[in-house]
Amino acid sequence: METFKIIKVKGSNIEEVNDVVTREVPFTLTVGDKELVTLACSPHDLEDLARGFLFTSGLIQGISDINKITIDDKRWNAFVELASPLQTEEMIFKRIYTSGCGRGTLFYNPLDIIYHSKIISDFAVDAAKISSLTSEFGRSSQSYLQTGGTHSAAIANNQGIVVFREDIGRHNAIDKVIGHMVAEGNSFSDTILITSGRISSDVIFKVRRSNIAIIVSKSAPTNQAVRHANSMDITLIGFARGKRMNIYSAEKRIRI
Amino acid sequence: METFKIIKVKGSNIEEVNDVVTREVPFTLTVGDKELVTLACSPHDLEDLARGFLFTSGLIQGISDINKITIDDKRWNAFVELASPLQTEEMIFKRIYTSGCGRGTLFYNPLDIIYHSKIISDFAVDAAKISSLTSEFGRSSQSYLQTGGTHSAAIANNQGIVVFREDIGRHNAIDKVIGHMVAEGNSFSDTILITSGRISSDVIFKVRRSNIAIIVSKSAPTNQAVRHANSMDITLIGFARGKRMNIYSAEKRIRI
Repeated sequence: METFKIIKVKGSNIEEVNDVVTREVPFTLTVGDKELVTLACSPHDLEDLARGFLFTSGLIQGISDINKITIDDKRWNAFVELASPLQTEEMIFKRIYTSGCGRGTLFYNPLDIIYHSKIISDFAVDAAKISSLTSEFGRSSQSYLQTGGTHSAAIANNQGIVVFREDIGRHNAIDKVIGHMVAEGNSFSDTILITSGRISSDVIFKVRRSNIAIIVSKSAPTNQAVRHANSMDITLIGFARGKRMNIYSAEKRIRI
Repeated sequence: METFKIIKVKGSNIEEVNDVVTREVPFTLTVGDKELVTLACSPHDLEDLARGFLFTSGLIQGISDINKITIDDKRWNAFVELASPLQTEEMIFKRIYTSGCGRGTLFYNPLDIIYHSKIISDFAVDAAKISSLTSEFGRSSQSYLQTGGTHSAAIANNQGIVVFREDIGRHNAIDKVIGHMVAEGNSFSDTILITSGRISSDVIFKVRRSNIAIIVSKSAPTNQAVRHANSMDITLIGFARGKRMNIYSAEKRIRI
């Protein structure tokens, strides 16, 4: 966080105070000798972000595909050496550069069309557990409470939250928790992705890519997110606040 | 909006209801014979979006640079004919493709480094006016009230709100209001940009590009947004809620 001297106005009352503001950095991801993307993100957990971004973009299948990630946290670069060159390198990079995405969001790799298939999972969870997880999730967000400027994401299971990360970008926060799971070699089966952000179609693709069967948000989904969740049989829950929630698809996994 | 049959959970109470969800479409912008970008956006005001995107990206200077925009609202395409080919076409497109951005956000054209200069404006507005504008702004958002899934943006002046637009993306909503102003040939001097979204550095670049001196959000800024607003002498207001607001930079334009 960075502290600025600001003017706080409350009606006719004004006050000069020091206020903390969340940080934003341009983080450039280079794979081999190719500069892949620059993300506007929060300057922490950058290795998780790099790993998660590569994974949810379909460029790696797991931690064994990465030889080395070197983070330069002064110039905000990640240099990634893969175990073997990308099989369809030319095609993938061409697609990334044309539908790719620079500032503050991610791209979805069109090659991942194969992941549009239905998810196979008999994982189920109590609605009451979802409520307690989202409460725990809300309490975890220190940076949001201090600056109001960040999104958060978590991977949880029936025991509780496994990993929690924050970022100024909702996509980045999701890539960070997924990147952490990939690094640990953890399985995504029987896990839930919790996000503070709206659920658009690209978020559903990240979830499908990771084989996560349930996604929960306190915010709204888009129609394309609901359609994709339906066709992939992913459980999509929106407006999860306190004991309330809306189940948009695959409600069989939620026990009430 | 699209209607889905969903399960509404409230504690142990469950109910199957029809619920409206905000729409998302992939909107592809083609300039001449070059496919520029695909934006995930809301399917309305697409001509404003195309125009605003071109303008805030520095690809057009005004409405006279556009010969024709044809919108295909079945396949979500815009075909743009410019009055004259882009002067530095090769360079610009190269940069767009490498730092460019596909899904759900915009890119900032690095050529616009010239716009990092200070804004010259003696526009000033009462703090009480900011409060009444943000109240009017909040009441205007029909789609948000119905679906909770959209951002909104407005251009206002001392008289009130001039144009109001909604979109699933905070950048798109801003491009839409700016695109409307460009189409009308309106001047941005003595105007205020109001946004529902967080203020990151790329939003400040859009504001500077349009010569707008004041930006107001109910949400938080990032540190880079505050730094750029300071160096460009743009008035940045965050957390504008009721009679409260935080002024992060160039407070001289706000009369209390």
